[in-house]
Amino acid sequence: MRTRAALAVQAGKPLVVTEVNLEGPKAFEVLVEIKATGLCHTDEFTRSGDDPEGLFPAILGHEGAGVVVEVGPGVTSLKPGDHVIPLYTPECRQCEYCLHPKTNLCQAIRSTQGQGLMPDGTSRFTTLDGEKIHHYMGCSTFSNYTVLPEIALAKIREDAPFDIVCYIGCGVTTGIGAVINTAKVEIGSRAIVFGLGGIGLNVIQGLRLAGADQIVGVDLNPSKKAIAERFGMTDFVNPSEVDGDLVAYLVNLTKGGADYTFDATGNVKVMRTALESAHKGWGESIIIGVAPAGAEISTRPFQLVTGRNWRGTAFGGARGRTDVPKIVDWYMQGKIEIDPMITHRLSLDEINHGFDLMHEGKSIRAVVVY
Amino acid sequence: MRTRAALAVQAGKPLVVTEVNLEGPKAFEVLVEIKATGLCHTDEFTRSGDDPEGLFPAILGHEGAGVVVEVGPGVTSLKPGDHVIPLYTPECRQCEYCLHPKTNLCQAIRSTQGQGLMPDGTSRFTTLDGEKIHHYMGCSTFSNYTVLPEIALAKIREDAPFDIVCYIGCGVTTGIGAVINTAKVEIGSRAIVFGLGGIGLNVIQGLRLAGADQIVGVDLNPSKKAIAERFGMTDFVNPSEVDGDLVAYLVNLTKGGADYTFDATGNVKVMRTALESAHKGWGESIIIGVAPAGAEISTRPFQLVTGRNWRGTAFGGARGRTDVPKIVDWYMQGKIEIDPMITHRLSLDEINHGFDLMHEGKSIRAVVVY
Repeated sequence: MRTRAALAVQAGKPLVVTEVNLEGPKAFEVLVEIKATGLCHTDEFTRSGDDPEGLFPAILGHEGAGVVVEVGPGVTSLKPGDHVIPLYTPECRQCEYCLHPKTNLCQAIRSTQGQGLMPDGTSRFTTLDGEKIHHYMGCSTFSNYTVLPEIALAKIREDAPFDIVCYIGCGVTTGIGAVINTAKVEIGSRAIVFGLGGIGLNVIQGLRLAGADQIVGVDLNPSKKAIAERFGMTDFVNPSEVDGDLVAYLVNLTKGGADYTFDATGNVKVMRTALESAHKGWGESIIIGVAPAGAEISTRPFQLVTGRNWRGTAFGGARGRTDVPKIVDWYMQGKIEIDPMITHRLSLDEINHGFDLMHEGKSIRAVVVY
Repeated sequence: MRTRAALAVQAGKPLVVTEVNLEGPKAFEVLVEIKATGLCHTDEFTRSGDDPEGLFPAILGHEGAGVVVEVGPGVTSLKPGDHVIPLYTPECRQCEYCLHPKTNLCQAIRSTQGQGLMPDGTSRFTTLDGEKIHHYMGCSTFSNYTVLPEIALAKIREDAPFDIVCYIGCGVTTGIGAVINTAKVEIGSRAIVFGLGGIGLNVIQGLRLAGADQIVGVDLNPSKKAIAERFGMTDFVNPSEVDGDLVAYLVNLTKGGADYTFDATGNVKVMRTALESAHKGWGESIIIGVAPAGAEISTRPFQLVTGRNWRGTAFGGARGRTDVPKIVDWYMQGKIEIDPMITHRLSLDEINHGFDLMHEGKSIRAVVVY
């Protein structure tokens, strides 16, 4: 079949909206009509050429929601008409990782996914000239129709709006999951969130959901204060307005340091500040942000020996097929808010404008609605 | 009263065995006759002048065992004749830290202990000329008699030999506790221990006690192999005999990386190797060793984002008054071995020879028996 897609032809170039060829689903694969997709910094990281593992040509996009159109042989958990969210971290429920209680990093299709291919080592996408197009993060939601492995699709309720819950495919789950799955924040905790973008705001609402008493947000941009307060932030700190040492300021503000700190900036210096503003004895610091290639974190080991714990999280520690449907339920039940974060809705033809909005800091999330 | 003690007169100089004055216990303090004390690298770190916080003159020593001679007003948990192990990490059972489930770092007397003083801000030791002598780590076990706060003494069974269980005051508890309290190693785990000295060997027997399946020991000194095997090591790795990348070698040896890795070297480069040879998704790396002043650990944040956990431990995460008596019981029951680690017994007059043995790598633990 043919489908419209935004094609990343070359690193650093704008996406090209065009028709491409899409082969139908093979065994254990599913054809999905994408109804909406968010634009995430990770897409831009690859599009821009900053991602050293980026492959071209490719169809980017990994934060979508849609409807199953057709299933390949052997697919048992999905049928045409099911509403789904694609998962860039799949959940096979059979590999060593899925069976381990401490991780969500299913490895079942990791090597082919990293090569921009389906699990059988081939691509379903080609240009109209017959050139192979790479899949991206196993999702390629910047195509109106795409093919995914069955294990990379979370089945969700049918009354959930696509243009909102697509965000659960990455940002919402990453932020809320970091709090609930990775940190396992307890009621009454004090926490600090560094970076109040699309991930940081979801960390904040995750903390509110978990019953944190103090939720400090740290951002250089004062315009983030109002929206972060809406999601539960109790204290705003602009580092440019702090005299002296930021760590000492934050430790004082949180009465000895935060029980949990979260880096949602990707800046390795901020990651160190986040660790060191965690409480002596028990503070845990969670790295969410993706750092530039080659960047390193550092600290004195004394910080760890005196009880701080340095950790990271990917996809919020969520097991997608199990946890994503629950987060969709939480949205539908009003336990979490997403609507105010979806600041822009675009057509596929306007997708490059979405990246402009991201760079200008004007959007929290821009969503392409097909 | 007067007591014999090994006095650290000045940084970098040998200890001087001499008589000193000792005041009796004030309120909530206890006079203890030390029967035996181990010589630990931390004592040497301070004696040598490498410890930037070292105070002189001082009576060093923090790994002792002895008998209560007299108790001051208000002491309720101890009486003359009780056998005790001094605790450089006390356990008041009332402070914010003692009441927190995730830490053992009681802060009740921290500031005065750091200044080499009793909790009331004074010292019980003076030279025969009347000069103030600092306490050390709240213990000063290089004195035949010493005064400690009640909360810094673990009461132990009376049939335990002083010249063995003194080692539980630091090395044994630090190593075994890192496994049991900090890492909480599960039965069947794979682990790597870097550094097979007095701490590393106790990590190894802690791993055996916890039911680990694979216990890899890493040391540049091949003479450590036999003794480490005696305590449960299953695989020995000498980095100088590994071609190529040590991390890759260890990851392969442990079938994907170790569930738990322990640094008992204090070398920040080894700490990085330890972290990176932990298993993707769930591996935890525990820093036990004390690094030189100013040294920093570093790694790519990707190591944490993909599920590794970087932590530290002090005194093996043990709450001394509660946990030390249990470890003494384990020794008496034969659950752990200590005897082969006590390689040298010295008189107090021979204490400087004990530090020579440490430098020459000839002792695991030298113990001064009073």
